[in-house]
Formats: sequence, structure tokens, C-alpha cells
Amino acid sequence: MRLRVDLLPHGTYPDVVLVIDVLRATTTAITYLERGADALLLTATPDVALALRSEGMRQDGARPDGESTPYLLGGERGGLPIPGFDFGNSPVEAAAQNFTGRTVVMNTTNGTVAAHTAAQSGKHVFLAALTNAHAAARRARATATEEIAIVCAGTDERVGLEDVYAAGVLAEYLLAMGESSIDDGARIALTVRRSSGNPLEALGSSVHGARLASLGLGEDVRYAAGLSTSTLVPTLVTGDDVPPGTLKFIAG
Amino acid sequence: MRLRVDLLPHGTYPDVVLVIDVLRATTTAITYLERGADALLLTATPDVALALRSEGMRQDGARPDGESTPYLLGGERGGLPIPGFDFGNSPVEAAAQNFTGRTVVMNTTNGTVAAHTAAQSGKHVFLAALTNAHAAARRARATATEEIAIVCAGTDERVGLEDVYAAGVLAEYLLAMGESSIDDGARIALTVRRSSGNPLEALGSSVHGARLASLGLGEDVRYAAGLSTSTLVPTLVTGDDVPPGTLKFIAG
Ligand SMILES: [Ca+2]
Ligand SMILES: [Ca+2]
Ligand SMILES: [Ca+2]
Repeated sequence: MRLRVDLLPHGTYPDVVLVIDVLRATTTAITYLERGADALLLTATPDVALALRSEGMRQDGARPDGESTPYLLGGERGGLPIPGFDFGNSPVEAAAQNFTGRTVVMNTTNGTVAAHTAAQSGKHVFLAALTNAHAAARRARATATEEIAIVCAGTDERVGLEDVYAAGVLAEYLLAMGESSIDDGARIALTVRRSSGNPLEALGSSVHGARLASLGLGEDVRYAAGLSTSTLVPTLVTGDDVPPGTLKFIAG
Repeated sequence: MRLRVDLLPHGTYPDVVLVIDVLRATTTAITYLERGADALLLTATPDVALALRSEGMRQDGARPDGESTPYLLGGERGGLPIPGFDFGNSPVEAAAQNFTGRTVVMNTTNGTVAAHTAAQSGKHVFLAALTNAHAAARRARATATEEIAIVCAGTDERVGLEDVYAAGVLAEYLLAMGESSIDDGARIALTVRRSSGNPLEALGSSVHGARLASLGLGEDVRYAAGLSTSTLVPTLVTGDDVPPGTLKFIAG
């Protein structure tokens, strides 16, 4: 088994891909499903998300205020809410809601782009974060036949310490589960994991973690630092019911 | 001053860029200039290099065997020599020759691509390696007004531990020279530098270092691990005499 860590999304993936956007897209995605959502639809652009909802409303004859649409919209651009969306990209906000029976359409700056890159070639695509790290590693190990690629979303094409740290946590779990040949990206992630203190210290020392704290979103950072608090692994599924331009993830 | 480390080349660079390809392009480039070469021309493709020489030969009326052309060709593809080139990409081979009065045209798999990416936007572009690390850091510090970007070439768009380690060495020198705000890439490089042992251990544990050793090129890895053995900093220059499709570096 090969274990590979891409510190930014690029290239092609032959087998299993674990997509990481700790602050905050994949942490929030896990939380939506934990809180009962039927499915997540990750869109490449906010426009696809907004179009989906108006379409959903027409199909369901829902009221113009959208209350009866099956779709809720969650996302952010540069950490800020998107006009017309129902939710930001906050796991703390998501954890306080009940999403039973709803589908959440997500669009975020980096996480959904990374997922789309992974899905272009990956055979099995999962979303991972610190909160589901152990479960995600187990799932990857049970599924892979050739390679496990851990893909860090990064921030605006710059590497993010928080994602590399989480990749190191996953790599450490995976190595403990059996022998792997590892690439330099994995070596670097393992080094960062072993040298950066506990999850909250690591996330707090990242550029993006510090930025979120300065925006008053320190509770999201604290939530994202919860190690293996969930056993839920968002799993990419395909099928006729997946709207074009979206990736559908369900609880796995 | 901002200090930034790109673990792979991407983006734009407003001020000073230090391009690193420790194994082996920038180490070899420094050696060519150490051994008397007037200049280096880095080409984006091998074809540009070969065309330059035939042109040179016609202008000089040199013999078809090329002995009198001002241009010598050095480079590799995937670690192997390029047909029609005079030299591979070996610093040990370069150190054994005298290049006085010659211009070396270089084309390598990753290093020259990284230099071209840097030159598209960078105001001041230098080549750096472990062998000139201290001199390169001093030059960057003396030149920069806004940002020092250290750009790791990587291997075929995968991050290379050897380049990240060298970036950490440069970052450590730069931090010792005065205050900087650093990005997550610099944090990761510093962590790798401080956790990976001495230069030879770090280079030897990288995928590319192990590959070179298995190809019988372990002496090149040993040479590249020589810390601050040179004070020469290859410096990008512009002007009418620079052939199209090339970057010209001179000793600085
Ligand atoms: Ca992020
Ligand atoms: Ca994001
Ligand atoms: Ca290299």
C-alpha cells in the first residue's frame, strides 16, 4: 500500500482519496451529516448552489421564501457568508441545528474545489478532518487496494498548516494500521504532526486559525480541534439523482 | 518583511524569489558559475537549448562537432542525460571541469520550470541550494523591501523533502537576520529543518535522494548536502543579449 500526502490538491488519484479542509469545510460537512442531513451536495461555484435551490423550489412548489425547499445552502467566501445562503461554514452553527430530512448544498472557498479535484480521478473519495480522523483512516484502509492519497485543501493555493497537521494525524493512524510506503508529503505531514503540539495548539498557530480567531470564530477552531469525536465519514456517491456540477456525499 | 515558502512553485511573486532545486539543478548551477562559467541560460525546454547551440555554431563558424561553440549544454530528464547534451545535471561532474569563458545552457525536469515560474513575476530572482544557503539568505535580505519568497521546485509537481529542508535552512538564516512575519509554508519548512537531522540525513531520506543513490549518484547527494560551501548566488539579469525563451543568470 502506498500512502501519499498532497500538501495542495493537484494531480490524479488512482484509488482512495481523503480530502481535508479542517478550517472549516470538511469539519462542517461531517457536522451536517452528524446532525441528520440526508446528503451533502458540494458545488464548484456559489451560482450552482443558488440555481439548485430555485430549481428545487419550482419542483416542490415551495414558497418564494424557500422554507419548503429540500435544499439548505451553506458556505463562505474568504471566511464570510455568501448572500442568499442559509448558513455560513461554521461547524458550531451546524452542531446547534437539526438537519433531518434536508440536503445541504455546500460551497466554500477551498474545500469544495479540493473535493472536485479529487473526484475527477479518485475511485473512492471521502471527506476527512480531525473530528473524524480515526474513522476516516480506518475507512480508507478498509477500502484501498493500491494507494491512499490524503489531499490538503490549503487556503487560496497556499499550503495550510492546519490541513498538513491533520494529514499527519491521519498518516500516523494509517501507519499504525499496517505497513505502507510513504512519499515526501507524508514524511513532512508526519513531522509537522509530531512537532506542533496538540490539535488546538497546531490549529491556533496556523495563519487561517489565527484569522478565524480574530474574526470572532475561535469556537469553530476549538470545535475543529476535537480529535476523533465523530465516527462519520462523508462518502462520495454517484447516480442519476446527483445534480450536474455537484458532488453528493452521504454518511458512511 | 514577509517571509514566505512555497512548497511547490505557484502564484505570483512581488519582490525577491529564491528558487531551490537542491537535487540537483540549483546545486549544479552554482557549481558551473563557481567553476568559471560566464553565465547560465536556463531554457524551458530541451529544444530551445539544442536550437541555441546550432545557432551559436553557425554564428561562430564552429566545427560540426560543436567544440568551438560558446554554448555547452547541461541537463537531465527524470535524472537521465538528454541526447545531444554535453553534461548531465551533476554537481560532481561540474566541479571537475573548468568552464571559464563558456556559457552553460541548462535544462532540467523541475528546476528550470520553477525558475521560469518565479521570473514571470519576481522582481529579483536568485538560485539557492544548501551549498550557498547563507550567502543566498544574506543577498535576499539585502535586496528585499517587502517579501522574500522561497520557492521549492519539487519533483514532477510533488513536494520534495530535500527542497523543503533547504527552504527551512534558508528561513532559519533569514529569521536570525531580523524579524519577519512568516506564512504556514515557512512554519512547515522550519519544522522539517529542525526535525530531519543534518543535511545529508535529510537528503538521504527524501524519495529523490534515495532514487539518485540507487542510480549510483550518491556522490551528487553528498555534494548537495554541503552546507554553505559557496558564497556565489546566481542572479537573474535581463537585457538585449538574452536569447528568447531563456533566463540568464550570472555570478552574484
Ligand atoms: Ca481551509
Ligand atoms: Ca474552505
Ligand atoms: Ca529536484
